[in-house]
Amino acid sequence: MTAPRFDVLGLGNAIVDVLARTEDDFLIANGLHKGSMRLIDEAEAERLYAAMGPATIISGGSVANSIVGVASLGGRGAYIGKVRADAVGAAFTHDIRATGVHFATGPAQDGPATARSFILVTPDGERTMNTYLGACQNLGPDDVDRETVEASAFVYLEGYLWDREQAKEAFRRAADIAHAAGRQVAITLSDSFCVDRFRDEFLGLMRSGMLDVVFANEHELMSLYTTADFDTALAALREEGVTGIVTRSEKGCLIVDREQTQAVPAHPIDALVDTTGAGDLFAAGVLFGMARGFDGVTCARLGGLAAAEIIQHIGARPAVSLRDLARQNGLPV
Amino acid sequence: MTAPRFDVLGLGNAIVDVLARTEDDFLIANGLHKGSMRLIDEAEAERLYAAMGPATIISGGSVANSIVGVASLGGRGAYIGKVRADAVGAAFTHDIRATGVHFATGPAQDGPATARSFILVTPDGERTMNTYLGACQNLGPDDVDRETVEASAFVYLEGYLWDREQAKEAFRRAADIAHAAGRQVAITLSDSFCVDRFRDEFLGLMRSGMLDVVFANEHELMSLYTTADFDTALAALREEGVTGIVTRSEKGCLIVDREQTQAVPAHPIDALVDTTGAGDLFAAGVLFGMARGFDGVTCARLGGLAAAEIIQHIGARPAVSLRDLARQNGLPV
Repeated sequence: MTAPRFDVLGLGNAIVDVLARTEDDFLIANGLHKGSMRLIDEAEAERLYAAMGPATIISGGSVANSIVGVASLGGRGAYIGKVRADAVGAAFTHDIRATGVHFATGPAQDGPATARSFILVTPDGERTMNTYLGACQNLGPDDVDRETVEASAFVYLEGYLWDREQAKEAFRRAADIAHAAGRQVAITLSDSFCVDRFRDEFLGLMRSGMLDVVFANEHELMSLYTTADFDTALAALREEGVTGIVTRSEKGCLIVDREQTQAVPAHPIDALVDTTGAGDLFAAGVLFGMARGFDGVTCARLGGLAAAEIIQHIGARPAVSLRDLARQNGLPV
Repeated sequence: MTAPRFDVLGLGNAIVDVLARTEDDFLIANGLHKGSMRLIDEAEAERLYAAMGPATIISGGSVANSIVGVASLGGRGAYIGKVRADAVGAAFTHDIRATGVHFATGPAQDGPATARSFILVTPDGERTMNTYLGACQNLGPDDVDRETVEASAFVYLEGYLWDREQAKEAFRRAADIAHAAGRQVAITLSDSFCVDRFRDEFLGLMRSGMLDVVFANEHELMSLYTTADFDTALAALREEGVTGIVTRSEKGCLIVDREQTQAVPAHPIDALVDTTGAGDLFAAGVLFGMARGFDGVTCARLGGLAAAEIIQHIGARPAVSLRDLARQNGLPV
């Protein structure tokens, strides 16, 4: 096994975020479930956009945010995801490459537009996402570049990929290549509604040995095991034979496996502005640390630091160098 | 003269801002003059975009920012400016209309893309703008809707319009209609390099009685009168027969005419993040106040409050309701 050229390769939905501040009333009037992600079609995207306030456009996409976070920490990141060759796709491509991430997936020349997520940020900092997947539906196994997968210490996949048959195949192909090359495979369960749509498949993936590391928040974990009791869900996860990274917002995180449970507190913040990307950046810190062979607590602290940075401004891409920030906080990068 | 339907109608270059943080070294390596605005062609736009870091996309355009500021203060705003019927033009249109501003200028169906300003924000919060005017070159006198001009207490024009012959004609037509209807005409000199390009024409406009209110910062004013001495420039402005509003960054502003000079301090801030839009939002507060008949000091305080809000976050559009902010600060709105 040769030394990996990349710390983390991400495979995910390539999305540009359209963020607007809103009041809770708007969510209620539009029947939106605060904090969740729902998929919308083009007609609903147009209707919602017309109804929402002035917006800021920033590149997003859950796993893409994580890979940019890895790069910001000084890691070597690569990304596979599908945009269309349009202005929004060009912005996504510019933004991820400008951080030093290797991104070579060919854009779709026709078909639906580059994906957009209309994100409504309420005064409490919580975000509610409405995603039009557009060009993401064209991501397929042919986009999974074998050489890049084999050259990456970790392959990181998002549960959201499960919404499209072709993307699911790309996911499986990437995991298979990674394991054959002696690399590790991580997944984020993405969202509790996503878990609800694919519970049995996600459990099947874990039990088939396709996953080494699983990221989930409390809601996703309880949804996975269809229980309202967090401890029950945690106990079940511990028996799956994976490393579980469970995020608990301001309560920090738990790192669990069959042998042990480690609790790491959250990094303190001054003011919560926008939670968009909190989980993505937490995963960035943890995966970067794991790829570098750091201990669990250090990985979790790097994740907490990255998450703390992202929730103190609008958008899910770091506004400062996470590497500098980590150094200022005495963390290894 | 009927009561005005709009407090302020703006006529300007309809631009979407592409903002990226950068170090001073990047400006130096690219021969950029910090704090200024330069016009670039499409090839340079592509070169610069490829070289700059990850960006945030937010609607901009100097006078458009001001009109959105007027609306955020609870005023009635209208805007005339040219986008192309493309994705970026749709974002501009959405954002300005979402604030309640009347914007009915028909978009160009072909020709150059919607204008973009690549704005580099250095760690000191200063912004350096590189503007590709694109579709703005199609703004002409036919876009100046007589009814809207006649229905507006103030028509507000930007010096930047002077870069395009057709836009200049639109500017003159708007000013003529406004005065014939008994309304007032205000201009911002926009940028010291802009003043340098059109010094004699700007002086001619003032002396011909086409302008009632002139906004300028210290650099623009000294450029206008080709002097390195601020007091000399100020004395010259005082004799022009207009109301001069001179902004001096953290030193506040001066309101001058033949009779008097009023100095109003700046509104305090916690942390300077991005000066993009500072002058635009200052003008918003002043024009809103003037349209409502407030005294000079109150107008300047409204301007200072709006400017203070805008420089504490990325982008030149308000992140909170300026009306609420004004009320919290005991100012009339």
